[in-house]
Amino acid sequence: MKDLKLAGLKSERSSIDINGVTLGGKEVILIGGPCAVESSIQMSQAAETVRKAGGKILRGGVFKPRTSPYSFQGLGREGLNYLVQAASEQGLLCVTEVIDAPSLEVVIDEIDIIQIGARNMQNFELLKLAGKIKKPVILKRGLSATIEEWLLAAEYILSAGNPNVILCERGIRTYEPSTRNTLDLSAVGVAKELSHLPVIVDPSHAAGRRDLISSLSKAAIASGADGLLIEMHPNPAEAVSDGPQSLHPEEFAQLAGELGIVANAVNRTFACGRVNEGETLETLRSQIDEIDQTIIERLAARMQIVSKVADQKRLDRVKDSTREKEVLQRLTNLGEELKLPSELVKKIYPIIFEVAVQSQIKQKMKREADIDLSLVSPLGSK
Amino acid sequence: MKDLKLAGLKSERSSIDINGVTLGGKEVILIGGPCAVESSIQMSQAAETVRKAGGKILRGGVFKPRTSPYSFQGLGREGLNYLVQAASEQGLLCVTEVIDAPSLEVVIDEIDIIQIGARNMQNFELLKLAGKIKKPVILKRGLSATIEEWLLAAEYILSAGNPNVILCERGIRTYEPSTRNTLDLSAVGVAKELSHLPVIVDPSHAAGRRDLISSLSKAAIASGADGLLIEMHPNPAEAVSDGPQSLHPEEFAQLAGELGIVANAVNRTFACGRVNEGETLETLRSQIDEIDQTIIERLAARMQIVSKVADQKRLDRVKDSTREKEVLQRLTNLGEELKLPSELVKKIYPIIFEVAVQSQIKQKMKREADIDLSLVSPLGSK
Amino acid sequence: MKDLKLAGLKSERSSIDINGVTLGGKEVILIGGPCAVESSIQMSQAAETVRKAGGKILRGGVFKPRTSPYSFQGLGREGLNYLVQAASEQGLLCVTEVIDAPSLEVVIDEIDIIQIGARNMQNFELLKLAGKIKKPVILKRGLSATIEEWLLAAEYILSAGNPNVILCERGIRTYEPSTRNTLDLSAVGVAKELSHLPVIVDPSHAAGRRDLISSLSKAAIASGADGLLIEMHPNPAEAVSDGPQSLHPEEFAQLAGELGIVANAVNRTFACGRVNEGETLETLRSQIDEIDQTIIERLAARMQIVSKVADQKRLDRVKDSTREKEVLQRLTNLGEELKLPSELVKKIYPIIFEVAVQSQIKQKMKREADIDLSLVSPLGSK
Amino acid sequence: MKDLKLAGLKSERSSIDINGVTLGGKEVILIGGPCAVESSIQMSQAAETVRKAGGKILRGGVFKPRTSPYSFQGLGREGLNYLVQAASEQGLLCVTEVIDAPSLEVVIDEIDIIQIGARNMQNFELLKLAGKIKKPVILKRGLSATIEEWLLAAEYILSAGNPNVILCERGIRTYEPSTRNTLDLSAVGVAKELSHLPVIVDPSHAAGRRDLISSLSKAAIASGADGLLIEMHPNPAEAVSDGPQSLHPEEFAQLAGELGIVANAVNRTFACGRVNEGETLETLRSQIDEIDQTIIERLAARMQIVSKVADQKRLDRVKDSTREKEVLQRLTNLGEELKLPSELVKKIYPIIFEVAVQSQIKQKMKREADIDLSLVSPLGSK
Repeated sequence: MKDLKLAGLKSERSSIDINGVTLGGKEVILIGGPCAVESSIQMSQAAETVRKAGGKILRGGVFKPRTSPYSFQGLGREGLNYLVQAASEQGLLCVTEVIDAPSLEVVIDEIDIIQIGARNMQNFELLKLAGKIKKPVILKRGLSATIEEWLLAAEYILSAGNPNVILCERGIRTYEPSTRNTLDLSAVGVAKELSHLPVIVDPSHAAGRRDLISSLSKAAIASGADGLLIEMHPNPAEAVSDGPQSLHPEEFAQLAGELGIVANAVNRTFACGRVNEGETLETLRSQIDEIDQTIIERLAARMQIVSKVADQKRLDRVKDSTREKEVLQRLTNLGEELKLPSELVKKIYPIIFEVAVQSQIKQKMKREADIDLSLVSPLGSK
Repeated sequence: MKDLKLAGLKSERSSIDINGVTLGGKEVILIGGPCAVESSIQMSQAAETVRKAGGKILRGGVFKPRTSPYSFQGLGREGLNYLVQAASEQGLLCVTEVIDAPSLEVVIDEIDIIQIGARNMQNFELLKLAGKIKKPVILKRGLSATIEEWLLAAEYILSAGNPNVILCERGIRTYEPSTRNTLDLSAVGVAKELSHLPVIVDPSHAAGRRDLISSLSKAAIASGADGLLIEMHPNPAEAVSDGPQSLHPEEFAQLAGELGIVANAVNRTFACGRVNEGETLETLRSQIDEIDQTIIERLAARMQIVSKVADQKRLDRVKDSTREKEVLQRLTNLGEELKLPSELVKKIYPIIFEVAVQSQIKQKMKREADIDLSLVSPLGSK
Repeated sequence: MKDLKLAGLKSERSSIDINGVTLGGKEVILIGGPCAVESSIQMSQAAETVRKAGGKILRGGVFKPRTSPYSFQGLGREGLNYLVQAASEQGLLCVTEVIDAPSLEVVIDEIDIIQIGARNMQNFELLKLAGKIKKPVILKRGLSATIEEWLLAAEYILSAGNPNVILCERGIRTYEPSTRNTLDLSAVGVAKELSHLPVIVDPSHAAGRRDLISSLSKAAIASGADGLLIEMHPNPAEAVSDGPQSLHPEEFAQLAGELGIVANAVNRTFACGRVNEGETLETLRSQIDEIDQTIIERLAARMQIVSKVADQKRLDRVKDSTREKEVLQRLTNLGEELKLPSELVKKIYPIIFEVAVQSQIKQKMKREADIDLSLVSPLGSK
Repeated sequence: MKDLKLAGLKSERSSIDINGVTLGGKEVILIGGPCAVESSIQMSQAAETVRKAGGKILRGGVFKPRTSPYSFQGLGREGLNYLVQAASEQGLLCVTEVIDAPSLEVVIDEIDIIQIGARNMQNFELLKLAGKIKKPVILKRGLSATIEEWLLAAEYILSAGNPNVILCERGIRTYEPSTRNTLDLSAVGVAKELSHLPVIVDPSHAAGRRDLISSLSKAAIASGADGLLIEMHPNPAEAVSDGPQSLHPEEFAQLAGELGIVANAVNRTFACGRVNEGETLETLRSQIDEIDQTIIERLAARMQIVSKVADQKRLDRVKDSTREKEVLQRLTNLGEELKLPSELVKKIYPIIFEVAVQSQIKQKMKREADIDLSLVSPLGSK
């Protein structure tokens, strides 16, 4: 793909910083909000839900490209005000779709990120316009675009002068009828292999149904996505568009609460938001329980690996003080970054080290005893 | 889908036990091995790699359905012996594909699981035969089968008397050329919503290229898959078929080492195998480092949630001894299940509790002091 | 496609003779009948309709591969008798689908042609069996098979020893919902370019709806297809399967009546059958009217081309007696082949020649007169 | 599809008249020309080829939507001049693609028809603009648009005030690699069933290869298309875009020469253009030979139907003078419309009538004689 002159540059950085929110960094970025901006109150509620869930960016369409000319076409400038106001109140960034030169003109000074929708992925004149602005652009993959065509669409924006393109996989058109489109998570890996651009995933438009959003969101993060774009509506049953695929606020909050651990599992981070006033003691405690379970499982896995290490070392060398000090220092530093009281790391890690060593010594002695016993056994042992 | 009389039963159990290996339980099951059985030595090496990586089932084709009549068609009965022997030596189960009545006859007494390939998903006569045996059947989704058709194919097997069907998503045919097929991870959720059958994922045939297997495997687990079917070959460069999509043994081992934490993140388990003799001290230590990082991150997340809990309680009630005892007991039990020395949990959790409480008290006092100060300030504070 | 060793041979003949019916010759072959054989009376009626419409082969499924195990699976041997009996009564050949070794065994001695269905296109064991018989095989393209895979499936049959394979395009799976599948008429040209095998088209399974069969059948012939496989049922409303896509007998007869002229338009032939007892004088006359219209249109087109010829010749050479004799002889011979009374050709063609010549002479004289007049005109002419 | 308020009106006329060229009438309209306008000489040559072949409209892109930003983007206003000039010289209409408001502005006063390309089919802002102009619009189907979405895109133009929309099927995206896209000829019938709009077919973009254009063009006409949009280039090997799918001028001329008879076969007309100066006597004579063959075949078919008519009437009523007069009058009128010398019809049809009657009488007498003979035969006859 020789024409990916800019999108294909491997040396360039691949993270985009937008007023302190970094797309393409270690943190997985959550973008949420309704398909269409409908009212001031709707957007306020949506923004609050997004912020509390740990989302960083509020979405909402004000210029809607709709399949039928008789469907709701968006609130335009009025909707833009609702979106910007709601995002600002909650300290969120905001993103909205543009569909032509006039709509771009309307939003450009108000919005943090512009979106180019799937149906406009090969509207090359719009891509060129998006290349002349300074704001970052989320470029959705076309309904039946190959990954190469998608990257070449990004190249239009890049080559026109705007280096800040975020790719968004949103499902492709296939024969399968049980979902609106087929989410192509291979696209995350392929796009990242061919380009240096951040890639986010929109599971909502892909699935077209609420019940799959949670599993697809986790899968997207596990596949390496840099962020998620999820439709959520304060009252999906009354949404003017895409209601069936929009999460309820509490579903959105719950999903967000489950993403952090998946992000960690692939060396990424995601921090769920501050306490939801509606969060009960029970919810919080069950979150703690889940974390505790992970800690114990990880400790057990750690102990198993330590046991393998021990297999490779002489008994008298199972304890390795230099490494222990080094590890302790590193973890203390990490803990501080994460606002963990430093005494906690300093108190429990020596215990973890010690228990591990004792456990190894016991096992070794037991094995050797078994061997000795077998040697002295009159019949030997099998 | 009224015809899913058996596949659609929601009351029925959805886990299948095969000589101690449970498909559809909490544990994610790893199946690995080459596309085609080629030699005794190839299978021995493959089996060892699978077992060490924590895999439970060895795969290998001996009757190969090939697009061209001039391609290698499999070693047949001779290959079967290599497969069964290699699996047996390593304490693994084994699975192979059958393509008609005679091939089923050949393998049925030797093999633990039979596989029906994508191209035969609607070979209804073969499905009926598979319904008359007692062994479990992995049923791959057809190249362009809808999920409904796939479940109806399973219904053929179930209605003929064999309740042990394991569904396998392996990618569907789309227009996208950068992968061999498009892995449809929505299918995991949809199939599980419509049926009670276990669902595993084969990322190898979907991607058709080695470099995407790791991210797609993790995504598959995150999406809720009950297992993975991954092609691995001792020497992919010389594989008679599917070399480009087969992992090298060391890639397979590395991937397996990274799956456990992803499984945990979605409340599943996967235990990577015992030490690989080739594993260096460095590899093991880097695994430990990764686990330690997770533990610290989880401890930090825990502390944040505790802080939210504290917000909801009176200062004098931050410490809740009853709950602490209960938690400690539960975690000790879990630790024991996982062979974690019980003293470790008993020693570190009280510290975690204590540091958390102290930290909350300090913060509360600080906040109150701030408020007091603001009250006495001559000008007040913003 | 190096593996098309036999299918790709360009020197080999590409027509298959089956008891006097030639597939792949100048004549377009019509195959008709119901999806499933249901009763003796149904098949008798179907066979009569097929024969009267000019069809040469009766189809009817007796072993039905069905998506659901609870759908009608075919009458088996009993149905076979109905099919064979009905075909024999009307002097038709017959074709039915086989799905495995036992069903092939049942039909092989009774049937003229066997069919391998789309879902079994890559059931390679069945293909090999079909390669060991002597009867011709209609091989349907798989639901999502590439043309290359389809030809390689044919290669399985050819390489196993049976040279008589007829390819059948029947629509491929796409995202478009308004038809059951998407008929790919490019496949006719591509398959004929890559192989020497006859290619027929099944518009019924492609469309899945009766109202498109007529236009797709004509398109198929125009694209170069060697035959049509069309579902027709004496009473579609009560068909056990595929009712909505089956033509009513009168629709089938009407379509057949319109195919001949399309076949002629691409240098092929199709002769509609003998008078339908139900045919009214009105129907017959409207057929005559249609033919007359074509004759006049063709005569007008002929006159225009003659006029171009005249432009290239000197006036005194407009009449070319040698060619006229030659043409007359050729057309008389052709007329005899087609049972046209020879006097008709001998009487009307001299008139056609004469009128053409006179017409040319008049035009030339008129043009020259115009030129002369313009020369003598005092003002000249525009 | 309730939203097809205007596109779905069945009462409305479905033909669009553009300066004397009627799209959606009895005549099939041929549109030809290169993908991109490259030079004045290229367009002159193309226009001449189109006109001579009987084409009515010249195409040529001056604003090119290209997948890569580094591909040739069109000559713009300069190219427009070449296109308009070349069309005007040959008395052709012209069509070019617009991609946004400014390009529409440039071409609107110069061009007869505007085209909206596949990639812009859901560029709703462009559709609305196209709805505000008076000139007809060719609306190509999107690469993966359903027929419903395509008609709703047309509805955007109609509902904005422009009733003159011509739909153009140009192939859809599927998995099949041997053609660029898959031509969906079912779409012609479906679009005509759901709407009253004319439907044309572009086989060039569908096939992406020159060798299939002829068979697909004929198939398109047979399927009921109102016109063809075919890429042709004076020198395809040097075309800046789409060379491999562009016909050579002589291929275009030859194809055009074969379309008339196909059009006639489905009750449409297409008149190939005047003599090509390059046309040899041999070519013209072979065209005449082809027409003569059709005439004879049709005469033979006529005789067969007359024979059926005779079966239904008493011998003494085989001749029906009233009908003969009526037929003769009608055909004479038709002949005059088609510029056929009226004496020709008046001379040959009485012969056709007479020979038919004599032939019937002879056959009847022969049959009756056979019966009589059989009655007197001492042994009877079978």
